[in-house]
Amino acid sequence: MAVRTEPARGMRDFLPEDVRRREYVIGIIKRVYERYGFEPLETPAVENIDTLMGKYGEEGNQLIFKILKRGEHEATGQADLALRYDLTVPLARVIAHHQSDLPRLFKRYQIQPVWRADRPARGRFREFHQCDVDALGSTSPVVEAELCAAVSEALLELGFSDFVIRINHRRLLTRLLNVAGITSELHSDALVALDKFDKLGKQGVQEDLTRRGVSEEAAARLLFTFTEALPGIAGETEIVDELNARTLAVLENQLDGHSYEYDASGNLHEILLLIANSPAAGRVRIDLSLARGLSYYTGAIMEIN
Amino acid sequence: MAVRTEPARGMRDFLPEDVRRREYVIGIIKRVYERYGFEPLETPAVENIDTLMGKYGEEGNQLIFKILKRGEHEATGQADLALRYDLTVPLARVIAHHQSDLPRLFKRYQIQPVWRADRPARGRFREFHQCDVDALGSTSPVVEAELCAAVSEALLELGFSDFVIRINHRRLLTRLLNVAGITSELHSDALVALDKFDKLGKQGVQEDLTRRGVSEEAAARLLFTFTEALPGIAGETEIVDELNARTLAVLENQLDGHSYEYDASGNLHEILLLIANSPAAGRVRIDLSLARGLSYYTGAIMEIN
Repeated sequence: MAVRTEPARGMRDFLPEDVRRREYVIGIIKRVYERYGFEPLETPAVENIDTLMGKYGEEGNQLIFKILKRGEHEATGQADLALRYDLTVPLARVIAHHQSDLPRLFKRYQIQPVWRADRPARGRFREFHQCDVDALGSTSPVVEAELCAAVSEALLELGFSDFVIRINHRRLLTRLLNVAGITSELHSDALVALDKFDKLGKQGVQEDLTRRGVSEEAAARLLFTFTEALPGIAGETEIVDELNARTLAVLENQLDGHSYEYDASGNLHEILLLIANSPAAGRVRIDLSLARGLSYYTGAIMEIN
Repeated sequence: MAVRTEPARGMRDFLPEDVRRREYVIGIIKRVYERYGFEPLETPAVENIDTLMGKYGEEGNQLIFKILKRGEHEATGQADLALRYDLTVPLARVIAHHQSDLPRLFKRYQIQPVWRADRPARGRFREFHQCDVDALGSTSPVVEAELCAAVSEALLELGFSDFVIRINHRRLLTRLLNVAGITSELHSDALVALDKFDKLGKQGVQEDLTRRGVSEEAAARLLFTFTEALPGIAGETEIVDELNARTLAVLENQLDGHSYEYDASGNLHEILLLIANSPAAGRVRIDLSLARGLSYYTGAIMEIN
């Protein structure tokens, strides 16, 4: 019998030179985050399966590596544990479990591998590191601006200059969905579809929305708001500050009189003012299509491209 | 339904203070190993199940976490992957796979978590870090002595002073098993039993040996050699150097004329001479009952207590 010596599909051995390269990168990120007052957190690679299932949508469920029950239950083929799929769900669990041991404002970073049963053919790895940074216990735009600055500084120190931090606010999205006439039962589905805006484009998202049960009229209204009333989303050529200003103007106009949602766009506006003299200046763009992970975020969310 | 927020059984969250403490310890170990010229290696947390099964004996097989096949095969309850159980088997795989990318003398350390489905009731964790250091591609006692020195220096820098490095040689054990009249088919079983000497004692090992098919006479002969002819094993009160000298004297006498096995005890003797002026001085004890992992080691083996 031939003995297979390659690592498992989609996984990599790190020989000394590779380890040193990764350690160099992680070292820079850690130093920057520590400088901004973020503290390290580490969670187990293995979670109870209930902690993970249902948190990442149907597609995520398919990609979670499940671990067989041990002992007498092994033969049943049932799984009771699963491999960490991201660092956000474990963070939420830690916050709930260790509340009394954590400061009220908990600024944490977490740099650990995650595992996803993706098809390696798509050029993805099944084991890779995530470098998360979050601040919990505050909705202050100061904290959000600090996150933008820390992330920008880390990327700049790593030698990247061509990046944009996309930012959005959960409450703004909720409002826009309501205005388009999408009932709240369909909000989660609509957010999953909207999140694919950069991959599928307007037409693709519109089809996805109707496939998920949103009426054609509501889908069309929502996408009209997104692409026409808020020109900042589709075009990449105009400068970030101008796009942000136009997006905010439309939002403030459209949501006028709704103080709750106005707060959300006001919050984004304040973040932009605060970063103006930080390493994040000119790198943060409001993007209403950013809907990732909205099942557990309630305030501002960000993503870097 | 109540949501469980604790980590999975036998696993731990590391809050910032815990992470810093672990990083401090790992940092010391890394620095010492690097100083001795060992290089970092990292392997995936997940291995093909065939890479792991059968390498850790029947008991080990039971403790390996197995990962369900994904996609259409999930319903079958079959596992095709497994969680890393130690760092030695992945090292052997890496050596076989990356031979041409590695130096002929490969001095590597590897500090990564491993996972074992042990009963947490026994006070064991199901996720814990191992800090391995090995040198491959040389049988020189100089390299073995260097390993002893590096490990001792790391422990001393961590503040430990009460430790002993037990050392043994595969070929010596083989010879002693032959001399006792144990046929080679039973060698693996006999080594598993001998390895429990410190837990079970003479009587317990003798029973375990006969349960595994070794004749009562052979078991008695083997244990006579171990406990009577080699007094260094059972007693802890005498000083290490004297114990080693007595063990070596008995071995050299008993194995006189068998140059192959004599090499093995000569090798141990040389290691002891080489460490005399290193941080490992007075901390290395020959222990013939040390039989762990002998299915993949062929030369000197060590363990620290």
